[in-house]
Amino acid sequence: MFVYMNIRIIQKDDYHKKILDLYNQLSPTNNIDISNFSDFIKSLNKKHNIYVIECDNIIVACCTYFIETKILRNLSKVFHIEDLIVDKNFRGFGYGKQMVDFMIDLAQNEQCYKIILDCDDDHAGFYAKCGLQKKNIQMGQYFTNPNLGL
Amino acid sequence: MFVYMNIRIIQKDDYHKKILDLYNQLSPTNNIDISNFSDFIKSLNKKHNIYVIECDNIIVACCTYFIETKILRNLSKVFHIEDLIVDKNFRGFGYGKQMVDFMIDLAQNEQCYKIILDCDDDHAGFYAKCGLQKKNIQMGQYFTNPNLGL
Repeated sequence: MFVYMNIRIIQKDDYHKKILDLYNQLSPTNNIDISNFSDFIKSLNKKHNIYVIECDNIIVACCTYFIETKILRNLSKVFHIEDLIVDKNFRGFGYGKQMVDFMIDLAQNEQCYKIILDCDDDHAGFYAKCGLQKKNIQMGQYFTNPNLGL
Repeated sequence: MFVYMNIRIIQKDDYHKKILDLYNQLSPTNNIDISNFSDFIKSLNKKHNIYVIECDNIIVACCTYFIETKILRNLSKVFHIEDLIVDKNFRGFGYGKQMVDFMIDLAQNEQCYKIILDCDDDHAGFYAKCGLQKKNIQMGQYFTNPNLGL
């Protein structure tokens, strides 16, 4: 079913391929040591994982998903997408679209009844091109927590 | 820290307290047997669980949360809310607000840096009263899958 040759699951060694630099392009992510990174990678599983696109030893994109089983709709499954990032030096080559296409295939393969994500207005057009439509609004509250340095 | 006396984690016996009827008020949820329901309850954990409000042996409200650990922001944690439902016969008594207050406390206690949820325009005012603000938009794609009966 899958023909996405350069997409694979994240692995411990991606730390040395500077995947944190990619995350850092979206929000500050520059203070994770290899030990904590490895522990995080080990915690991932079939229901919550991260895929990356690697080209010539460079990680050019990443995307997180998790599958939520609900009581609603008779134990239905929802496929959530988070943190799709394409390296700023590799935008415009279709990597983002390729990743979303892959995630849609994965969601259907996992028998999820829908795929959803939250984004700002500036990115709605991109996701519309990927076949997604505006469905709802996201509400949120940010906490100020000195322990988190936020 | 918590003073929410009538809020507790969902349990297997809630099946007999007709919790499916509550879910059914939001989306069709009328085809789960006790065995599958029990398996689902067992699969819940500290990172993904459901709380209910029970008054006089009646489950008047329920709400799902899951805690997502991200690489972003140095292994930060996000608290997601899903499927807050108040029984149509018990609306207007503050149960929904009580549940959201509880979830906000739980999110902070779990060191999450934000709490987020998706809702339609009609419910944005309620969540605003609970202290949440509009942040983004939700994009999605629904799949037609005969196996899911959707």
